[in-house]
Amino acid sequence: MDQGEVTTTKDAAAITYTPCTGPLPGSKKIYVQGQIFPELSVPMRAIQLATKTAGVPHEVVVYDTSGPYSDDEARVDIKGGLPPLRRDWIKARGDTEPNPHQSTRLQPKRDLQTTQFPGLERTPLRAAYGRNVTQMHYARKGIITPEMEYIAIRENQQRAAVEAPLTAVEVARNEHLKGRGFGAKLPTLVTAEFVRSEVAAGRAIIPANINHPELEPMIIGRNFLVKINANIGNSAVSSGIEEEVEKMVWATRWGADNIMDLSTGRDIHVTRDWILRNSPVPVGTVPLYQAFEKVNGRIEDLSWEVYRDTLIEQAEQGVDYFTIHAGVLARYVELTKNRITGIVSRGGSIMAQWCRHHRQENFLYTHFADICDIMRTYDVSFSLGDGLRPGSVADANDAAQFAELETLGELTQIAWTYDVQVMIEGPGHVPMHMVHENVTRQLEICHEAPFYTLGPLVTDIAPGYDHITSAIGAAMIGWFGTAMLCYVTPKEHLGLPNRDDVKAGIIAYKIAAHAADLAKGHPASRRRDDALSKARFSFRWEDQFNLSLDPETARRYHDETLPAKHAKNAHFCSMCGPKFCSMRISQDIAEESHESDEPTSALAFPAPKANAADLLPGASV
Amino acid sequence: MDQGEVTTTKDAAAITYTPCTGPLPGSKKIYVQGQIFPELSVPMRAIQLATKTAGVPHEVVVYDTSGPYSDDEARVDIKGGLPPLRRDWIKARGDTEPNPHQSTRLQPKRDLQTTQFPGLERTPLRAAYGRNVTQMHYARKGIITPEMEYIAIRENQQRAAVEAPLTAVEVARNEHLKGRGFGAKLPTLVTAEFVRSEVAAGRAIIPANINHPELEPMIIGRNFLVKINANIGNSAVSSGIEEEVEKMVWATRWGADNIMDLSTGRDIHVTRDWILRNSPVPVGTVPLYQAFEKVNGRIEDLSWEVYRDTLIEQAEQGVDYFTIHAGVLARYVELTKNRITGIVSRGGSIMAQWCRHHRQENFLYTHFADICDIMRTYDVSFSLGDGLRPGSVADANDAAQFAELETLGELTQIAWTYDVQVMIEGPGHVPMHMVHENVTRQLEICHEAPFYTLGPLVTDIAPGYDHITSAIGAAMIGWFGTAMLCYVTPKEHLGLPNRDDVKAGIIAYKIAAHAADLAKGHPASRRRDDALSKARFSFRWEDQFNLSLDPETARRYHDETLPAKHAKNAHFCSMCGPKFCSMRISQDIAEESHESDEPTSALAFPAPKANAADLLPGASV
Repeated sequence: MDQGEVTTTKDAAAITYTPCTGPLPGSKKIYVQGQIFPELSVPMRAIQLATKTAGVPHEVVVYDTSGPYSDDEARVDIKGGLPPLRRDWIKARGDTEPNPHQSTRLQPKRDLQTTQFPGLERTPLRAAYGRNVTQMHYARKGIITPEMEYIAIRENQQRAAVEAPLTAVEVARNEHLKGRGFGAKLPTLVTAEFVRSEVAAGRAIIPANINHPELEPMIIGRNFLVKINANIGNSAVSSGIEEEVEKMVWATRWGADNIMDLSTGRDIHVTRDWILRNSPVPVGTVPLYQAFEKVNGRIEDLSWEVYRDTLIEQAEQGVDYFTIHAGVLARYVELTKNRITGIVSRGGSIMAQWCRHHRQENFLYTHFADICDIMRTYDVSFSLGDGLRPGSVADANDAAQFAELETLGELTQIAWTYDVQVMIEGPGHVPMHMVHENVTRQLEICHEAPFYTLGPLVTDIAPGYDHITSAIGAAMIGWFGTAMLCYVTPKEHLGLPNRDDVKAGIIAYKIAAHAADLAKGHPASRRRDDALSKARFSFRWEDQFNLSLDPETARRYHDETLPAKHAKNAHFCSMCGPKFCSMRISQDIAEESHESDEPTSALAFPAPKANAADLLPGASV
Repeated sequence: MDQGEVTTTKDAAAITYTPCTGPLPGSKKIYVQGQIFPELSVPMRAIQLATKTAGVPHEVVVYDTSGPYSDDEARVDIKGGLPPLRRDWIKARGDTEPNPHQSTRLQPKRDLQTTQFPGLERTPLRAAYGRNVTQMHYARKGIITPEMEYIAIRENQQRAAVEAPLTAVEVARNEHLKGRGFGAKLPTLVTAEFVRSEVAAGRAIIPANINHPELEPMIIGRNFLVKINANIGNSAVSSGIEEEVEKMVWATRWGADNIMDLSTGRDIHVTRDWILRNSPVPVGTVPLYQAFEKVNGRIEDLSWEVYRDTLIEQAEQGVDYFTIHAGVLARYVELTKNRITGIVSRGGSIMAQWCRHHRQENFLYTHFADICDIMRTYDVSFSLGDGLRPGSVADANDAAQFAELETLGELTQIAWTYDVQVMIEGPGHVPMHMVHENVTRQLEICHEAPFYTLGPLVTDIAPGYDHITSAIGAAMIGWFGTAMLCYVTPKEHLGLPNRDDVKAGIIAYKIAAHAADLAKGHPASRRRDDALSKARFSFRWEDQFNLSLDPETARRYHDETLPAKHAKNAHFCSMCGPKFCSMRISQDIAEESHESDEPTSALAFPAPKANAADLLPGASV
């Protein structure tokens, strides 16, 4: 196959691409100021409502992952990259220094043929000698960083620290609907101190490499909003640089909290430059992919040294978390031999092959201390990879999977001795009745380090629809305590996702994450559901569209049958038509009651004469 | 709005429409003969596999809802209708008679303007005087009907009564993966006697009107495969007769076990004729819709008499189950007053309005005994409607919903005294943590009558994607014990679904139902998952497509990036490319091991030297 050999050669000047910009329909970008750090300006999305009724809020403020791209007033130039939001915060801590050697900034020769990212003149930073620059390190020292306050403000999804008090009916409804969080303890109001304490305990991580100052800080932990990750990246068979940047902008526009660049083609380094410099969200990678490319896919040439250099190269570029398959121990490989689908993790299979070829233990395990040392130098978080995750429901929760999990638990504790942040990756393909066991075991074995799962898919029989098979498992596992859900697109198992697939995967996962937040009882999450349902019941169609996860699609579907402008005020839609609209009838009942000045309780009336017992055969009805 | 007033006038001869026919890709229609009733010929779909490996099955037999339309050898003419499969079985029981009056066959005058169904010359049947023709009646008398054996054969999804024994590894895996059914007790092999006993106990129903002899019998109960229902039907604003028939054929092609015709436009009676005579699956309706049309939507003119005549009219046409909102008692309406979305059931809101206007108790409740009498005369099953189901997560599991459920429990027992089959409808919009309560309460209050839920949607914020928000709730509630899931399409809340929407809804619900079967431990359901996963691991792309729920989409997605024919044998796809395909590497490891003649256990080797404890900072690594 020679598709992998194609290399594009062109000038940055030739890149004329501009990403999709501007706010989502009906929305306004707002910024909330910090209190501890007044220079903080935390972006949120305020969905404007048409209603001007007294006592009804005029906007719904929601979490916003889309970065400056959705701000009408921000100037976007992907050749220059985003402004370095965190530069001064990092500098003020006084614990970093420029890398005097910069050797690893040199790119592999062949990459020089491709379109270089022109905008970055910065020298990469690293921790000063003897210093540790991780958010966990600060947290454990009792230090609240600007990142922590930024996150606290963001998680609350409101303009001010305290909102208008709830009505008695709302309080009662909240009590009635109270979620059960399987041990999650969501605060009513997130404070910077709460963020700090969760990071210090290892229950949450803030992926934030000191060389990725462009990112808007976010947190991954089960006592916060459930997050989602979108995988992008070219494979040897498909995709180019602009397309990857566009996928990133597109994914964050629809709600990706993180992205992983899983590129495996020729231009890995340069593609990543373009993505990182333009990404407002943390970027994760699997460094093994690039290391494997460097040795031209020859397992015999893959070594710790090549891998180590790759880690440093990517850490200096600004990658925020690394998936590292350090738990795939040589002796565990045998446990997969009776599986239906063997090893389905790319990294896991490469390491298994390496162990076998070299007859040595996994170098990611034997060099784990060295890796920790690199991670703390840049504040890269671990995403400890589940190289032996099940690739079919038949292989779920088996000995191989749980053996690896035990090792990940050990490694978590080691990383924490370095104050390095850790999350744990999880499956995969798991039937519904086995989903819960995954979370409970993970939390126990990995000392409550955040769990980050791929789906899981609850059945294998629907390729083409695996965003749905996996959204089912993702919603459940999110409810049970998983902190971040890695999306799956409709193309999973079949091919590389395009722009539409990325959006379909994101929306399915926003649904799963939000459903989990609701079920966990996140205090802010039901505001949007209630606002949308109220809009629906009042036939405020524009509000209904704008409050939805995908306003464009909601509007388009409505307009397919009733495109006329006045239909946006109609008290029905084409699903039931005017005569049979239950909401219209239900409102009529309420209004009639109001007009005739009867008390509402007159909707009901004296106990009916008929009694069910009279309905028995033989009774006279 | 005058869209509702359009009436089409044309001859049946003008209908040239032919439904989509032929088998699904890679599939063959097979028929399995009965043992108790050797004349039974039970259709199934055998998915043919490319593999010819010894010991590996060459086909996977799956449940088939598509009727004669997917049989290459069947001649389909929608003007003639399907062959009356059950006619002789019904006749042989000798307990029916033609309706001597046939008055109710007369259609409302305005319907005469539209395209009449030309194919039916039959006189409608009814129970002979003093007889009861329900499947429950037979079951309770200990009689096994042909319908029951047909169902038993169908549920097993295999050619013969007993299949090849499992290998030791498969037995171990089955044990490991054993589902937890929340009280469901799935037999290893379904027998006709088991079907009878479940129907006799009221835990399952066989919707099978004696005037719908065309239907291929199926069962709804939690100890069987989870079923799905697709709603079709025009509204006053949209859709025509051919389109509705096509939707039925299309829905059953993709796996709808039942359909409900929810038409509310002018041509209700005639549309239903066309659908029923061509439908291989049970058809349900909400008779209130037609009754309400008959009085031109004037609540003051709606009466028991109009409704009764409509029930008889539809029963004589052959409708298999009626949604009847007999649990919406007048006094419960008040309980909805603090809701965010009031009453969202069309039937529920009409009855609430009726009670209020007439200041009387719901006539569906006061005349419940009369209704039971009609139901047993034709074997129409009750689908007791949940007129007060929640229309938003904020309204879930509230006093109104559960009050109505109590009444439905009472009515269930009354219906059973008439040997009339009953299922209970359920919500709606329910956050995940409240889903389980719905099933457990329903089973307890309604004496284990089958539960039939709409979704539920686990969040309100994704109009345009409610097939996904609801598939999450549907999969969970199916696992917990719901017997049938009513699908939701992407157009829910926005407009009337078209053909693509119907398919999207069906596939999402096949996923949910199948995931529930897996989690419940249905013995036959994992065969398809395992076969597909094996095909995936062996790079048998054609098998992977054909085994999937939607072979056309799976193939199309794959071919978007790798259309060449030889790519169908390639050991990778465009998602990861050749070098990074974990399955390819995983197979290489296994093969290497085989080639070098080493024992498989050599994949692992002596315990690694490195120990995690050595990795602690300070240790020499």
